[in-house]
Amino acid sequence: MDGEQLTKDKYEKIMDITKRRGFIWPSFELYGGAAGFYDFGPLGAPMKKKIIQKWRQHYVVEEGLLELESPTITPEPVLKASGHVDHFTDVMTECKKCSASFEVTELVKEETGDDIEGLSKNEMENYLKEKKITCPECDGKLGEVYEFNTMFRTAIGPKEDRKACLRPETAQTIFIDFNRLQRIARRKLPFGVTQIGRGYRNEISPRRGVIRLREFTMAEAEIFFDPDDPSHPKFSQVSDEKLRFWPSENQEEKSRELTEKTAREALDEGIVCNELMAYHLAYAKKFLISLGLPEDSIRFREQLPGERAHYSQETWDMEVKSEKFGWVEVAGFAYRTDYDLSQHSKSSGTDLTVFTQNGDDGKKVLCHVVEPSYGIDRPLYCILEHAYTEDDGRNYLKLKKDLAPIEAQVFPLVAEEELEKIGKSILKKINSTGIFAEYDDSGSIGRRYARADEVGVPFCITVDHRTPDDSTVTIRERDTTDQIRVKIEDLPKTLCKLLNSEIEFEQAGEKV
Amino acid sequence: MDGEQLTKDKYEKIMDITKRRGFIWPSFELYGGAAGFYDFGPLGAPMKKKIIQKWRQHYVVEEGLLELESPTITPEPVLKASGHVDHFTDVMTECKKCSASFEVTELVKEETGDDIEGLSKNEMENYLKEKKITCPECDGKLGEVYEFNTMFRTAIGPKEDRKACLRPETAQTIFIDFNRLQRIARRKLPFGVTQIGRGYRNEISPRRGVIRLREFTMAEAEIFFDPDDPSHPKFSQVSDEKLRFWPSENQEEKSRELTEKTAREALDEGIVCNELMAYHLAYAKKFLISLGLPEDSIRFREQLPGERAHYSQETWDMEVKSEKFGWVEVAGFAYRTDYDLSQHSKSSGTDLTVFTQNGDDGKKVLCHVVEPSYGIDRPLYCILEHAYTEDDGRNYLKLKKDLAPIEAQVFPLVAEEELEKIGKSILKKINSTGIFAEYDDSGSIGRRYARADEVGVPFCITVDHRTPDDSTVTIRERDTTDQIRVKIEDLPKTLCKLLNSEIEFEQAGEKV
Repeated sequence: MDGEQLTKDKYEKIMDITKRRGFIWPSFELYGGAAGFYDFGPLGAPMKKKIIQKWRQHYVVEEGLLELESPTITPEPVLKASGHVDHFTDVMTECKKCSASFEVTELVKEETGDDIEGLSKNEMENYLKEKKITCPECDGKLGEVYEFNTMFRTAIGPKEDRKACLRPETAQTIFIDFNRLQRIARRKLPFGVTQIGRGYRNEISPRRGVIRLREFTMAEAEIFFDPDDPSHPKFSQVSDEKLRFWPSENQEEKSRELTEKTAREALDEGIVCNELMAYHLAYAKKFLISLGLPEDSIRFREQLPGERAHYSQETWDMEVKSEKFGWVEVAGFAYRTDYDLSQHSKSSGTDLTVFTQNGDDGKKVLCHVVEPSYGIDRPLYCILEHAYTEDDGRNYLKLKKDLAPIEAQVFPLVAEEELEKIGKSILKKINSTGIFAEYDDSGSIGRRYARADEVGVPFCITVDHRTPDDSTVTIRERDTTDQIRVKIEDLPKTLCKLLNSEIEFEQAGEKV
Repeated sequence: MDGEQLTKDKYEKIMDITKRRGFIWPSFELYGGAAGFYDFGPLGAPMKKKIIQKWRQHYVVEEGLLELESPTITPEPVLKASGHVDHFTDVMTECKKCSASFEVTELVKEETGDDIEGLSKNEMENYLKEKKITCPECDGKLGEVYEFNTMFRTAIGPKEDRKACLRPETAQTIFIDFNRLQRIARRKLPFGVTQIGRGYRNEISPRRGVIRLREFTMAEAEIFFDPDDPSHPKFSQVSDEKLRFWPSENQEEKSRELTEKTAREALDEGIVCNELMAYHLAYAKKFLISLGLPEDSIRFREQLPGERAHYSQETWDMEVKSEKFGWVEVAGFAYRTDYDLSQHSKSSGTDLTVFTQNGDDGKKVLCHVVEPSYGIDRPLYCILEHAYTEDDGRNYLKLKKDLAPIEAQVFPLVAEEELEKIGKSILKKINSTGIFAEYDDSGSIGRRYARADEVGVPFCITVDHRTPDDSTVTIRERDTTDQIRVKIEDLPKTLCKLLNSEIEFEQAGEKV
């Protein structure tokens, strides 16, 4: 009870900061809002871009995946072929009295705690009747259970006769561009293609803040490989990484027990389907660690057969523990087999095999696919929650220094023209080197430090009365509140190294 | 005639590279394509991200604008208040015989060269009849002239009863978030807010490649200011910048003459409406120069009264000269007055004034707005066209080094295990420092240089037979084909400095 109370307070404190200081707030507030839509404000938007930038560094620059950027509007035939027109559905019901709509499995989970995912429509209808579940809003009787396609619909052209949808995933344009992409990759298997951008899902009744959005940002990768050779050339670099698994058997046995295995063990024991999947689970965990999330907040949960998307033969969810929302899925890893390429090949009448040469042997391969697929909005929330720290009467966001939206703030100690002039020239200088810094001269210095802490500014630079004499300023570190003195001319380089954790704070200047 | 022929060849050569090597290609080719939609491939996507990154450095980091990221789906009431539901229209007509659709002013421009923008629907209809204009596809008779709203429509929620549109501009969510944003900016005027993201326009008959897209990427900024004080604190930093103007008077007099003025002169002589506008035109030119576009390819054209959007009192287009498409608008600068805030205030019943304190005086201000609004896809095309160079039998993309999608390539001189191993370890090392580099061991070294040149790789690193002995490699510079020798351990730092033009190539190593 006490713990729950604390958590609730903490969530409300975090939400207060995120709205007031400009990380995240509900969209369209001026017009009464619209559930499932959130804005990223002046702190959230740059922080989200930093997560994406780190994702690109991890997957595009270091892993060497090809990048693609396609439209979000997608002609219907593409999504018909991929199965989304027929299968991208949720089961819903409506209250006969107040007309509120509900996604049935969510409703049941909230009302009874039971997980009825995977049941047929008939079985769900019977379940609702048996358990006498009524409308949670007005206690009214619930109507029939039916499927609702959760893609947003639109149409292209002046006669609006070409049906289209907003893409439910970024993956499909990668599949339909396969022939161009495999030529660019020079037919070498395996090769991967990634896309970062908006995805859309017309949720029936979105709740849970940014955890369930109708418009969200995804970062997906499709790894194409020869099913006869699912090896990854760099597997040995991650094979000793320890991962915590919650396989489907344990879930079916209602066991909460996690199995800790290295990537190699998980592969050898058949917990994961192939080496590429094992590689990407381990590689993904490294990514979350690089965002500053603690090791024990990460687990891999296998999706149960009834939960899996229509294209997947095996799916792992990478989940992050949140105090507010429990375990939150931040990425999914689906073994899509050759489902998509085969479907698009049939629908378009185009050969989507790749001809690979291995010495004298050449063969045509219809690639299989392992797909790491991240949501970007959810980890952002999880990171904020994990970073929120109350300590000794001080509250601050203990963000990884290279993830903080404002990287430094510059203060004149007091409102004197000389100090202000120096402060502004320092700001200009560090901004010009690409460091996102701000100037703040409002209120007492203590108040300004507190304001900076609240949004996780790692370093505060103060121009004081010694500055005009010897061209030095102080830098205060957020986490320790320790201060050092450095020369103004060294500031940009020193800050850069500090932000990238290349030097220790104490070594960066003279202790104050 | 000769010149035109050359240009056509050049365009086709550029298009060949952009499709084959993966900069840009038409979307959904597998399903017959969809006009007005383009994909950015493995070279185009990172290059586009670099343009956006430079834009953020220029406007967010250095100019200090606040950043916002909102959904692209926008409830209809927002766009009703902003005037887009009523006014975001094009005038179209259809062929009675073949049913092809045309945007009337474009059709007329193509058929007769006349610009009839600003005429009423009746006048346009009469014009078409008078000039006996028929369908350019089948010579059929054209039907009535009518207005078509070019927003893409969708609907939110399981009953799809909440009408919504895909945003035609990113600006509106900035206006409706005004109260949150002005508090974050601490009520200091002027302040600016920016948003980068997708915009949508259901064009009637899109042509001209990425110049006229149905889905595009915008980078917009709204600068809020007190109409009694349209000054910019940093105006003096750009006031001597020379700009080439094509004011509306000159256009109305059919004069192609450009007026070259400094930003200060343009302001003093009343060519531009206020200091903020003058500042932002000059600041925008600096941005294009930083992308490597030549000074004489840039001009500012004033929109004629009939052309301007419904919200604007004065609009300047920043145009870039393209051999293929003539002068291409890459950014617009609209003086939106208090139109938007006033409309949203009325529609929502919410006060959107800001209370500013100046010493002892406080007052309520309904802000006016100057809006720099960029398209990102068009400058990308313009940059590729300007970069394409044929010289001495060699063709290469003379991209600014920090805009090149692949920043370096690593080659083993010959296919020997030792050289390959060193090459791959070099690749890993430079990738880990954030440099986007690739490995290429296929074909002769000359062929590999040529392939790198074709896509503008600024630096090629070759591991040769001297490398195992003294741990040095050669770097070849794209533009000069000169080569230097450097130590492997210095490579990451040297490349970084070379890419940012911090050192001269000749000074970076021993000449080969």
